[in-house]
Amino acid sequence: MLTINRLDIADAHVLIEGARARATEIGVPMCIAITDDSGNLIAFERMDGGKVTSTIIAMDKAYTAAGAKKATHEYGEISQPGKPAYGISSAIGGRLMVVGGGLPILVDGAVVGGIGISSGTPAQDQDVAQAGIDHFMAARQ
Amino acid sequence: MLTINRLDIADAHVLIEGARARATEIGVPMCIAITDDSGNLIAFERMDGGKVTSTIIAMDKAYTAAGAKKATHEYGEISQPGKPAYGISSAIGGRLMVVGGGLPILVDGAVVGGIGISSGTPAQDQDVAQAGIDHFMAARQ
Amino acid sequence: MLTINRLDIADAHVLIEGARARATEIGVPMCIAITDDSGNLIAFERMDGGKVTSTIIAMDKAYTAAGAKKATHEYGEISQPGKPAYGISSAIGGRLMVVGGGLPILVDGAVVGGIGISSGTPAQDQDVAQAGIDHFMAARQ
Amino acid sequence: MLTINRLDIADAHVLIEGARARATEIGVPMCIAITDDSGNLIAFERMDGGKVTSTIIAMDKAYTAAGAKKATHEYGEISQPGKPAYGISSAIGGRLMVVGGGLPILVDGAVVGGIGISSGTPAQDQDVAQAGIDHFMAARQ
Repeated sequence: MLTINRLDIADAHVLIEGARARATEIGVPMCIAITDDSGNLIAFERMDGGKVTSTIIAMDKAYTAAGAKKATHEYGEISQPGKPAYGISSAIGGRLMVVGGGLPILVDGAVVGGIGISSGTPAQDQDVAQAGIDHFMAARQ
Repeated sequence: MLTINRLDIADAHVLIEGARARATEIGVPMCIAITDDSGNLIAFERMDGGKVTSTIIAMDKAYTAAGAKKATHEYGEISQPGKPAYGISSAIGGRLMVVGGGLPILVDGAVVGGIGISSGTPAQDQDVAQAGIDHFMAARQ
Repeated sequence: MLTINRLDIADAHVLIEGARARATEIGVPMCIAITDDSGNLIAFERMDGGKVTSTIIAMDKAYTAAGAKKATHEYGEISQPGKPAYGISSAIGGRLMVVGGGLPILVDGAVVGGIGISSGTPAQDQDVAQAGIDHFMAARQ
Repeated sequence: MLTINRLDIADAHVLIEGARARATEIGVPMCIAITDDSGNLIAFERMDGGKVTSTIIAMDKAYTAAGAKKATHEYGEISQPGKPAYGISSAIGGRLMVVGGGLPILVDGAVVGGIGISSGTPAQDQDVAQAGIDHFMAARQ
C-alpha cells in the first residue's frame, strides 16, 4: 500500500495567494491553477483581465507538471526538433504542456501537487508559478 | 455593440464562500465552480474530500447554466424519455449537464455568470449552489 | 462519378433570413446554422441574446440533419428507451443530435444541406428551422 | 462586477462584409468567422469555394485571437522552435492557432471580439482579416 502526501485546499489557497501577489506586482493578471499530485484540479482563479484561453492552459500546465513530475519549461527544452521528446506537446489531446509556467510542487522530495500559470509571457508565467511555491514553502516553516 | 455585466473575481469568491459554508453545514465536501456569462471558468475550489470526477462535472454544470441561461435541473426535467429535450445530455461532447447543481446567476434580469456544484446528491448540489447565490445576493445589498 | 447539388452561400443567406424573420416574430433570439450536404458549415448567425451553448448545438443539429438525411426530431422518436436507435445521441462525440431543430434541406428529392436552430424550446427551434426552409423554397420559385 | 463591451450581430455582419470584399478583390474565397470577446461564435460565412478544413480553422483563429487577446501570427513568431512559446500550437485540443489570419478586435483599448480567416495563404488570411477590421472601424466613425 502506498501513502501519499497531497496538497489540501488550504495549501492551494496559500499557493494562489503567493502567485496572485507576484502577478499583481508585475502587473499581469493571471490564470492560476493548482492540482493535486494526480493532476486533478484543487483550486483555480482567473484574475480580472486574465485570458480566456489561459483558463485551460493554466490547468493543463499544472496537470502536466504534477502528473509528469516535471516543469513544463523542461519539456520545452527536450521537445525541440531533434530532441528526444520532440512531438510530446500534442500528447493527451494536447493537454501535455511544454510551455513554461507549470511547476511540480515537491515536499520532502515527493510531488504533492502542481501549479500552472498562464496569461503572461512564458517567463512571466514561470516566475509567478515559482512565487506561489516560494510563498507556500515560507508559510510551511 | 453590446454592453454586458459579468462577475469579477471578487464576486466569484463571495459565491464560493456562500457555497462552501452551506456544504460544510450539511457535511458534504463539494467541488465548486464559478464561470462568467460565457461559461468560461473564473474560480474553482475542491473542498478536501470532494470527488475527482466532480471537478469536471462542477465546471460543466456552471458552463451549462451560464451558457444556456437555465438551471441544470430544469434540463433534467425536459430531457427525460419522451420529453422534448430528450438526448440533450450528450450535447457539446457531454458538457451539457442535465443533473441538478448548476444555476445561472442573474443580476438585473441578465445572466452574469454560473455556479456549478458537484460531489453530493443532485439535490444537495442544487441546495449548495443556491446558497452560494443567496450569499452573493445578500452581500450585494 | 457523382454529381451533387449543394447550397451555395447565397442560398444559405436566404435560409438564415427566413429563420431570423420567424425567430424575431416569436421573440426568441436564435442560433442559426446552415451546412452543406456533407454537414460542413456554410453560414452561421447568433442573434443578439442567442445562447452560448446553442452555438455548438445549432451547428450539430444542421450537421446531423444533412449528414444523416433526417430531421433531428425523428431521431428523438426512434432513440427513446426501447426503440431501435436508443443510445444514438452520444454518437460522434455527442454531435449526433436527437433534439428537434435540425432539418435536412431537400431539392428535387436530394439533400443539398441542413439547417439547425437552437436557443428556444425544441418545438420553437423546429418551427424556426422550417420557416427558414419555407422562405428558401418560396424564393426559388 | 465587470462591464464588458462585445460585438453584436450587426457589427459581425459589417466585419464579414469587409472581409468578403477584400477576399473577392484578391480572388480567394475565404471562410470568415467572427467571435465575441470570449471566443464564442457570433457569425460565420464560407464563401463559395472556401475550404472545408478552413471552416474549423477560421473559427479557431477567431477564438484564439479574442480569447488570448493576440494576433495568431504573433503566436506564430513566438512559438517557433527555440522560442518561448514553442509547442503552444497544440494547446486546447489544438484550437490555439499560431498561423496568421486571426486578429483580436479592439475598441477603446479593450477586446470586443475576434476575426478569423482561412482558405488562402496565412498572409492572405491576415490581410483579409485586417480588411474586415478596417471596414468595421471606418463604419463606426
